[in-house]
Amino acid sequence: MAGEGVKLYGFWVSPFSMRVELALKIKGVDYEYIEEDLQNKSPELLQYNPVHKKVPVLVHNGKAIAESQVILEYIDETWKENPIMPQDPYERAMARFWAKFIHEKCVPSFRKALLGGETEVEKGIEETKENLMILEKVLEGKSFFGGERIGFVDIVANVIAYWVFLYQEAVEKEVLTEEFSVLCNWKDKYVNHSIIKETLPPKDKSVAYYRARFAQSKASS
Amino acid sequence: MAGEGVKLYGFWVSPFSMRVELALKIKGVDYEYIEEDLQNKSPELLQYNPVHKKVPVLVHNGKAIAESQVILEYIDETWKENPIMPQDPYERAMARFWAKFIHEKCVPSFRKALLGGETEVEKGIEETKENLMILEKVLEGKSFFGGERIGFVDIVANVIAYWVFLYQEAVEKEVLTEEFSVLCNWKDKYVNHSIIKETLPPKDKSVAYYRARFAQSKASS
Repeated sequence: MAGEGVKLYGFWVSPFSMRVELALKIKGVDYEYIEEDLQNKSPELLQYNPVHKKVPVLVHNGKAIAESQVILEYIDETWKENPIMPQDPYERAMARFWAKFIHEKCVPSFRKALLGGETEVEKGIEETKENLMILEKVLEGKSFFGGERIGFVDIVANVIAYWVFLYQEAVEKEVLTEEFSVLCNWKDKYVNHSIIKETLPPKDKSVAYYRARFAQSKASS
Repeated sequence: MAGEGVKLYGFWVSPFSMRVELALKIKGVDYEYIEEDLQNKSPELLQYNPVHKKVPVLVHNGKAIAESQVILEYIDETWKENPIMPQDPYERAMARFWAKFIHEKCVPSFRKALLGGETEVEKGIEETKENLMILEKVLEGKSFFGGERIGFVDIVANVIAYWVFLYQEAVEKEVLTEEFSVLCNWKDKYVNHSIIKETLPPKDKSVAYYRARFAQSKASS
């Protein structure tokens, strides 16, 4: 499908720019991908996202949009093929609710559990496990959060399906284990989906990146 | 307009449940309001919002929705009269972007500036002022974030239009001052809009509530 001048400013291992790539690919929208050097951000990125100065930024017909979840909804409203949001208002509200839960509850609790200081880790593990139990109940009996196919919540949850496992390997700790069997089944289906599989960053290179990054932030804290 | 069994679980001085009330009133949707005792939450609230156990919760035809911004979008999609979201996908993305900015950047920076410990206050004031400058630019030349009428971003920004002034009076500090003239003009128009004016909680009672609450959290920290 013609992207009518669609550009994505991203970073190869960012789960947030990857969300946008996944949505564009699921939709079949052609786009030009521009890799950012986060140590030396391009003038275009700073111009297009002056508030946060972060990837991802989607530029469509010269107009820029930032924030991955905002971009996902824009993509779904602009290119109608292969919807990622449900059509029913209540189901849409539920999708937004769970995406928000993943962003505001799960991501910070994983961070505390895997990267937190001594005083935070125990609380972080406890919170993470509570959050994962909640997500298991949501997924019970379904292939994906989106039902039979990958939708908005699954795309947002790429952090859990793939990145958490990279982080875990990088820090040699485990909090999302096989005991969460419903989530692990979902994760297996997700990362083996043809579009997802060809788009995710390579595992070994990604783990090496996070290992170096976490070591650096530990050294400078 | 018939609300077809619309119930709102709220708390009289919560800016979050107030967002939902404002949207329902702007839309002209009839609803039953149920005041929650936050020290002794009702079984219904805990049943309807088991994840966060918080107000607001909207129940429509027996189905519950939590999280104020999620509820606002549901309301706009369910009752089409007097839209609060723009119709154009790019404008909708911008509305979601600014609502997220207010929720994730402005609210935490106000909290640090007005309620933070000694080490946080200075940084909090600096961040707040930067954020307010950004919002001034967005509002420049417009009556409301929504253009000529109150929309999604204005409703989310009730925290800035009214609550920040309550907090400031309660703690006897000022960070949002008249130097932010564009925001102050907007705030004056906003709080004097007929629907907003009749719905906001009474000022003196609200200030007294926050004065007591902040004193209590200071004593217990």
